[in-house]
Amino acid sequence: MLSKVGKFEFHIESYTCDFTGKLALPVIGNFILDAASNHANARGFGYEQISKDNVAWVLSKLSIEMLDYPGFDQNLTIETWVETVAHYVTQRCFRASDSKGNIIGYIRSVWAAINMETRRPINIATWHPDLAEYIAADMECPVENFAKIPAVTDVKQDASYSVSYSDIDINCHMNSIKYIEHALNIFDLSVFKEKYISRFEIVYLMEGVFGDELNLYKQDITGNESIIDTKKGEESVCRCRIVWKDKKEV
Amino acid sequence: MLSKVGKFEFHIESYTCDFTGKLALPVIGNFILDAASNHANARGFGYEQISKDNVAWVLSKLSIEMLDYPGFDQNLTIETWVETVAHYVTQRCFRASDSKGNIIGYIRSVWAAINMETRRPINIATWHPDLAEYIAADMECPVENFAKIPAVTDVKQDASYSVSYSDIDINCHMNSIKYIEHALNIFDLSVFKEKYISRFEIVYLMEGVFGDELNLYKQDITGNESIIDTKKGEESVCRCRIVWKDKKEV
Repeated sequence: MLSKVGKFEFHIESYTCDFTGKLALPVIGNFILDAASNHANARGFGYEQISKDNVAWVLSKLSIEMLDYPGFDQNLTIETWVETVAHYVTQRCFRASDSKGNIIGYIRSVWAAINMETRRPINIATWHPDLAEYIAADMECPVENFAKIPAVTDVKQDASYSVSYSDIDINCHMNSIKYIEHALNIFDLSVFKEKYISRFEIVYLMEGVFGDELNLYKQDITGNESIIDTKKGEESVCRCRIVWKDKKEV
Repeated sequence: MLSKVGKFEFHIESYTCDFTGKLALPVIGNFILDAASNHANARGFGYEQISKDNVAWVLSKLSIEMLDYPGFDQNLTIETWVETVAHYVTQRCFRASDSKGNIIGYIRSVWAAINMETRRPINIATWHPDLAEYIAADMECPVENFAKIPAVTDVKQDASYSVSYSDIDINCHMNSIKYIEHALNIFDLSVFKEKYISRFEIVYLMEGVFGDELNLYKQDITGNESIIDTKKGEESVCRCRIVWKDKKEV
């Protein structure tokens, strides 16, 4: 049996950095999904293996907490493991370390396994009992458990976009990480100059497809906390909560 | 003296593929800019070195010709070299090969060196005569020389976007490759299902900055050739020409 924890290294290229020269948060999203995928593949419950059962993993919630972001030409190490397996969801955690080995972040994610035809969740514990054997009980992930992200009550629409070619993934749905990119794009550049994202949460509620017109509604809870509701008509497609910290506080 | 030709290898990760499972064209753009940057840095005329002279490289034109696109988990090798050095521009070429060593594409690019304060081009031949020593005369790049891309005369606006956080690079201008991504996003998904981009040309005319409202105008020249004009008000920021080929022709 392979080790419970998978370890993956990423080199920070210029095109994965934002204008501040640091790794952009959506790219951390890409890296952790890549790590999750490689960890699962190597252990027999990856995308290709489960698609033979007509089952697919669907990301339901993601919560990223970062103390620091690596810069250009540095490395980011992502360790990942299964934390819990319940009937219909499994939680996977991640630990991010910089080039010096300092822990700079933790990520918690919630996944469902769905039948690709019915789009209904399947019972993970009975379908793949071996998943539970990989639970890494000795690993700790200090990311707070998911709290409900309320709907935005403000009616003012802050931005909109049409789901386009570059948003679509290999499953012909909107890429989970692209929602994050579009949500961050409603903030002014000055916010990213003065602050960094200390905590980013997203809950996925509906699947976006090509041509969907999505509207974003932002509500500031405090000066450093905002909720962004991405809606298709009246229905929420996903909701994010962003907690910023002043860079000088670091 | 280092070899005239630099060789760089890229692994195709899932998040760099489009919905067809092939490397997305904008990512080829990221890879070649990365290769150009590393080639120049190693030879003494890279970004950091020339910024000491208060000079920056500015990409003026780019032309990408691809026979095939590598898929997920494959490698792409990019070789790059200096083809010509004139007074105010230098041409850099690239050769793309797949995991088996087959040549699958060639790219030609034109660069100016500008004074960062005056934003005026400087005479490359006198400022950095050593650049000419790196001209790889024995390398061939069969990409046609740049032809003028005409303005789009059609007045119907096909899309628009506001330059946002994820579009901005470390120089606080719009990232050259993001113009390509936005231009491709005006096509229907069915086009990417049936065709692939055989040739993509872009000429950069103005620098976009955060908050710019950019409008896209598309004109179809033939069923397989389109021009896309990206404008800020009345002025063109960049123009692209795309030549598609039917996938069944491959």
